[in-house]
Amino acid sequence: MAGEVNRQWRLVARPVGMIKESDFRWAEEPVPAPGENQLRVRNLYLSLDPTNRMWATETPTYLPPVGLGEVMRGIAIGVVEESRHPNFKAGDHVQGLLGWQDYALSDGRGLTVLPHNPALPLTAYFGLFGHIGMTAYFGLLEIGRPQPGETLVVSAAAGAVGSLVGQIGKIQGCRVVGIAGSDDKCRWITEDLGFDAAVNYKTEPVRESLRRHCPDGIDIDFENVGGTIMDDVLGLINLRARVVLCGLIANYNATEPAPGPYNFGNLLIKRARVEGFIVLDYVDRAPEAAAALGRWLLEGKIKYRIDEVAGLEQAPLALNRLFEGANMGKLVVKL
Amino acid sequence: MAGEVNRQWRLVARPVGMIKESDFRWAEEPVPAPGENQLRVRNLYLSLDPTNRMWATETPTYLPPVGLGEVMRGIAIGVVEESRHPNFKAGDHVQGLLGWQDYALSDGRGLTVLPHNPALPLTAYFGLFGHIGMTAYFGLLEIGRPQPGETLVVSAAAGAVGSLVGQIGKIQGCRVVGIAGSDDKCRWITEDLGFDAAVNYKTEPVRESLRRHCPDGIDIDFENVGGTIMDDVLGLINLRARVVLCGLIANYNATEPAPGPYNFGNLLIKRARVEGFIVLDYVDRAPEAAAALGRWLLEGKIKYRIDEVAGLEQAPLALNRLFEGANMGKLVVKL
Repeated sequence: MAGEVNRQWRLVARPVGMIKESDFRWAEEPVPAPGENQLRVRNLYLSLDPTNRMWATETPTYLPPVGLGEVMRGIAIGVVEESRHPNFKAGDHVQGLLGWQDYALSDGRGLTVLPHNPALPLTAYFGLFGHIGMTAYFGLLEIGRPQPGETLVVSAAAGAVGSLVGQIGKIQGCRVVGIAGSDDKCRWITEDLGFDAAVNYKTEPVRESLRRHCPDGIDIDFENVGGTIMDDVLGLINLRARVVLCGLIANYNATEPAPGPYNFGNLLIKRARVEGFIVLDYVDRAPEAAAALGRWLLEGKIKYRIDEVAGLEQAPLALNRLFEGANMGKLVVKL
Repeated sequence: MAGEVNRQWRLVARPVGMIKESDFRWAEEPVPAPGENQLRVRNLYLSLDPTNRMWATETPTYLPPVGLGEVMRGIAIGVVEESRHPNFKAGDHVQGLLGWQDYALSDGRGLTVLPHNPALPLTAYFGLFGHIGMTAYFGLLEIGRPQPGETLVVSAAAGAVGSLVGQIGKIQGCRVVGIAGSDDKCRWITEDLGFDAAVNYKTEPVRESLRRHCPDGIDIDFENVGGTIMDDVLGLINLRARVVLCGLIANYNATEPAPGPYNFGNLLIKRARVEGFIVLDYVDRAPEAAAALGRWLLEGKIKYRIDEVAGLEQAPLALNRLFEGANMGKLVVKL
């Protein structure tokens, strides 16, 4: 380790609106040495997720806010370099909340050893076999409860979660309509992923396009975005529709309180259900999702895509790509 | 029938904001004679419900709008005067959508014959053994799913539905906090009905008072009101809270689109569930509610109150009482 440093991004300001690089401080610290029952991980990939933006605010969510001065919280995959912990050995690939840095010390809590599978790239454990795949799988199946012939609408449909949700919806026999922010994305989800239709919300009137593509109304909304897009969807829901409330990225950068959907009352009229979903509640059932997703992958029924940014130094600004609609598939940073 | 007329309120304008008498036309028509398989009912009581206001708008809800020129739609209890229908006989008391008029012809569809029970006033079939009791019973138990020790908040708590919901919540072992619009109402629901606490939203800061009365947070919101009151409740919900969306009376008189709750995102953070409820979906299970509510009534565990207005001519303006918070218990018009 001589001469090497542990490069880190530390949160130093609560972001207002989009992330600015100045919300973080670049630090270079000595590479840490594990104490007893600790291990040192060298991070290989960071997962960039909308939830990172939430963690940077001062409002507690389902986890406490990242403290000012602390290394930015983030999911990462790395390799164990040195272990004084009985459950981990050097060379193991692990995943956990290892943070935006080159090296992390861990006491093993919350850390998962990844299976050794040379046929799968490590990033698949973000994109399909990790929190993203579980979110799509359990969110759609447990909260959305799709039935064959129903119509499923997915927002942020070319994102990591949305692109999987739509494919799982097709496997369940649904008509699937995706909402995404570019013609490229719309082409990808319809031509490559098998969505029945796509709406480019940047160039089309969303409500009218949805009405055209959902002639029988909307039974399930897998909601990743919120804002006016969700409102347009809620205006078209059917009796006993389900809204899987998985993300509200339209609001994460808001600088003023954002109102809820104007069509909220339609939930009453249509006896619809909205239910919040956070994947943490399903970690115990991870093997179930991995088994199903793995089978569908082998059967060619499901595809995933990694959108890779190179270099830890890119992490803060790369996060904005999620909110600009600039990524296609799972956004990761390769260290 | 010679010399008698059928007095009616016919809807002639879509109300803007609160109801005006000029939104209706007073008509006097001949008393109708039943044809084959029809019966004539003389209305005795009208039920005034927030949903009347919704039916008067031009927007289809769970029923089509009342057409301009038509007799105003409303639930009524009456007595069969003349029947040419095999299932009804003169003297039967019946309940159904008989409208704002003295006399209604019916083909029997949607009409219920009330049991002959001299111990119960007829209005009990609005207040406890009709749509109101069923709304409270099924809405709370099926959608809210109360567990002993949980905290239940009820808005419009001194209204017909709210006052029953709170008492059923107490029977289920919940801590029950009601939100109402006067000190009289707050006294009634706590001292007479056994609610644990009450918040007068007209004189207290709702969120602070709720925080004080709900030290363990809110597990169930039985929502009759919407608007800022619902927002205050949603800010205090617990993990896996349930919101029974039964009414949004804060918005029924709105003249501009009303935003959804600003705390909508808290549903995601707290993995909460919002579900719309309309009692029509439970009519097949009416006997189940009536049996339970009747037993609780006999056991002295539940009370109800009728707020009676005299005279058909009062109906249009009396409806506003529901939105002004002027009624206590079930609002009816005695003809």
